[in-house]
Amino acid sequence: MTVPLLLASNRGPVSYAEDGAGGLVARRGAGGLVSAVAGACAAGGALWICAALSEADRRAVRYGKVPAGVHMLELDPVMFDRAYNRVANATLWFVSHLLFDTASEPVFDARTGREWEAYRAYDDAFAAALAKEAAYGAAVLVQDYHLTLTPQQLRERRPDLRIGHFSHTPWAPPEYFCLLPDAVAREVLLGMLGADAVGFHSRRWADAFARCCVEVLGATYADGIVTHEGRITRVSVQPLGIDPAELRERASQPDVQGRLPVLRELIGDRQLILRIDRTELSKNIVRGLEAYRELLRTWPQWREKVVHLAFAYPSRHDLPEYREYTGAVQRVAREVNEEFAVEGWLPVHLEVRDDYPRSLAAYSLADVLLVNPLRDGMNLVAKEGPVLSPRGVSLVLSRQAGAADELGADAHLVNPYDVTQTAQALHEALSTPAALRAKRSARLVTAATALPPAAWLAAQLAALPPA
Amino acid sequence: MTVPLLLASNRGPVSYAEDGAGGLVARRGAGGLVSAVAGACAAGGALWICAALSEADRRAVRYGKVPAGVHMLELDPVMFDRAYNRVANATLWFVSHLLFDTASEPVFDARTGREWEAYRAYDDAFAAALAKEAAYGAAVLVQDYHLTLTPQQLRERRPDLRIGHFSHTPWAPPEYFCLLPDAVAREVLLGMLGADAVGFHSRRWADAFARCCVEVLGATYADGIVTHEGRITRVSVQPLGIDPAELRERASQPDVQGRLPVLRELIGDRQLILRIDRTELSKNIVRGLEAYRELLRTWPQWREKVVHLAFAYPSRHDLPEYREYTGAVQRVAREVNEEFAVEGWLPVHLEVRDDYPRSLAAYSLADVLLVNPLRDGMNLVAKEGPVLSPRGVSLVLSRQAGAADELGADAHLVNPYDVTQTAQALHEALSTPAALRAKRSARLVTAATALPPAAWLAAQLAALPPA
Repeated sequence: MTVPLLLASNRGPVSYAEDGAGGLVARRGAGGLVSAVAGACAAGGALWICAALSEADRRAVRYGKVPAGVHMLELDPVMFDRAYNRVANATLWFVSHLLFDTASEPVFDARTGREWEAYRAYDDAFAAALAKEAAYGAAVLVQDYHLTLTPQQLRERRPDLRIGHFSHTPWAPPEYFCLLPDAVAREVLLGMLGADAVGFHSRRWADAFARCCVEVLGATYADGIVTHEGRITRVSVQPLGIDPAELRERASQPDVQGRLPVLRELIGDRQLILRIDRTELSKNIVRGLEAYRELLRTWPQWREKVVHLAFAYPSRHDLPEYREYTGAVQRVAREVNEEFAVEGWLPVHLEVRDDYPRSLAAYSLADVLLVNPLRDGMNLVAKEGPVLSPRGVSLVLSRQAGAADELGADAHLVNPYDVTQTAQALHEALSTPAALRAKRSARLVTAATALPPAAWLAAQLAALPPA
Repeated sequence: MTVPLLLASNRGPVSYAEDGAGGLVARRGAGGLVSAVAGACAAGGALWICAALSEADRRAVRYGKVPAGVHMLELDPVMFDRAYNRVANATLWFVSHLLFDTASEPVFDARTGREWEAYRAYDDAFAAALAKEAAYGAAVLVQDYHLTLTPQQLRERRPDLRIGHFSHTPWAPPEYFCLLPDAVAREVLLGMLGADAVGFHSRRWADAFARCCVEVLGATYADGIVTHEGRITRVSVQPLGIDPAELRERASQPDVQGRLPVLRELIGDRQLILRIDRTELSKNIVRGLEAYRELLRTWPQWREKVVHLAFAYPSRHDLPEYREYTGAVQRVAREVNEEFAVEGWLPVHLEVRDDYPRSLAAYSLADVLLVNPLRDGMNLVAKEGPVLSPRGVSLVLSRQAGAADELGADAHLVNPYDVTQTAQALHEALSTPAALRAKRSARLVTAATALPPAAWLAAQLAALPPA
């Protein structure tokens, strides 16, 4: 089979879990992109190549359970661990989000070479699969920081293809990017420049990428084009948005509606400050809780009048930093409750059990949505919240989220390191009159839905050279 | 008294210590700048304003011990602690050196306001003293990150003065600088733009500063001039160098020469890898020791053929990060010795007791000088070592030191995060033939002495508007 449109990403549109009775349950990925592409995949017009991420995924591959249009790569677990955990998540993610405790991390030493080898092999496995399946001149859209080398590896095999790469993360400024080993820094940039077009959620990340190409490779950058050793790569900005009809349809399902009574009882007649995140260092949950504490200290009139519901779902527990961070989140939540709780009022409800329907239900009840990442490629929570809010929601948003480009005018923008400013923004958000809040929230919805997944995908394709 | 030239810096050219019998011992600061200015100060042509840093300093002020031409400010200890430890050293230093463990630090909260007030008052105490002492149209040279607000505070009092500011640290790119609270970031930049000229050790830091002015303040930057709200500030680069005659004269003194026999015995007929640093997070001592370990693992031929002498002097023990870091340095040094020591050969000698004459003596015996900071405004160790080396020394130098601009062509440049690359550079440095090493070291001396303190001072004055 050869197809005219291919996607490649670490995590695919479907994953599997053991059903407890020896069988497998398929879980379709959430998010509009899956819907936007799934139809084409099923009809044979597109192929999505991804990695088998678990033993259940690997069994699904072996038993032929994976649906048409999805190709799950079975990769060596040692290679996968090094490529995914060590290089992608513990190195490239930390670089792009400026997360290193630089005095002690990173350390590039004798292990780095074999980890980098694994990442190269991992990316090459995708390139090999894409090269095999793609029709002549096909469009190939490679996704994210797990697969930075794939575009160039694919181009070497199949110069006929039209290749795009899209980064869902931020990009680091050259002064920070260059803490990577020289050879790694070069290979990442050259790998991505193997694409005809590279895309980012924000102009800031696109510009940072281009500056890295200029400073590390000596490339030139003008008119949105990076030129290096005769190759030309277009750098563009395609800020992924929400498909409102699809999201509202999902939120109207019984599993979501069934979560409402428990949440309503928990909130009572108080205002709800909501946050929904993976427990990811960059999401800045601890400072968010500290800002809530400062709100209650500085403006005592909000005591017993607000509830903070913090959904902090497990993430990357293979990395010790994340286990420690989860502990810090729980500690601060407990401190806030110890300081302020009275009979009948628990100030913070921290929920660490992942429950997507409950998240959707909570959106519809939120008065204030707190989205304060240290740095974030886009942040779709900031876009989903307003879309699902019947009365309108006040958005407290980090200016370091890509979403701030589009939503900033109608959000309370904050410096995520500034707990006092964040507390002030929470106070203002809670104090916003209902009519103004509804008006601003409506404008947030307009901005959040400007480039829904199908249009975003079309924009990625449009950035490629003509077929 | 009014004087035509004034310097202002946190630490002055002289400090005091208790002599144990109720008296005070004066200690003249090391470094060529003191010599360059001391004569003018003593003759009444210049005044150096600094802070009393200790109880002994404060007693010296009260007893009238401070020499003519030096004015020590007695400041409230609580204000000093907040301004010096919290703002200058724990915040501004960390920003310029990219040292924060961003997931948890910094946190700007209710304490930040009063700490920033203290910093403002501290800088203003300097501005007030300068305003009082300066002759009409005098030149005032304000030094470093402790005093970023002083230029503007001084200009408001005395618009007739010609004001310069010099940063001895690096400067952060805007993406990192803007983690400061908005008002603080603006005030720092506006404070420095109160100067007619701001100087840096490296073009990289100067450009980063100018980009911060453009991105944070909306200033314009062209032809080395920042323009903001009608004010014009020249941004220039004056890389401080060594006065070779003065340094060699100092090194010829008996206290230095007297340290040689013990060092010679310790080294024996082995090659010496030397490092000399304060135990400062940015100096990257731990990764330096790890690189030495990787050298001994990868090239066993160096075992028993080299000695690593690491002078890591106490620094900033008021900050917990520094106490922890000192522990990490000692731990890795011990690990290396446990792995490789044999009878008659201790691979690492870690010395934490400050001894300036011993440092000068060690320079003259070094075969390889390891200077691998994560980020460093200049780094004068890299310049002193070659000047005091009779046979020439191989320099392993971090590309993130300002000194790399001038010394890079004849040094083994390394990425300071890359332990493997640093080990490789140590191997190459040890393997360099004596003749080549001498030739390269001679060129290092030429570069290191290009702008000695007196010329550097003159360059700062020349950057000011004409009197």
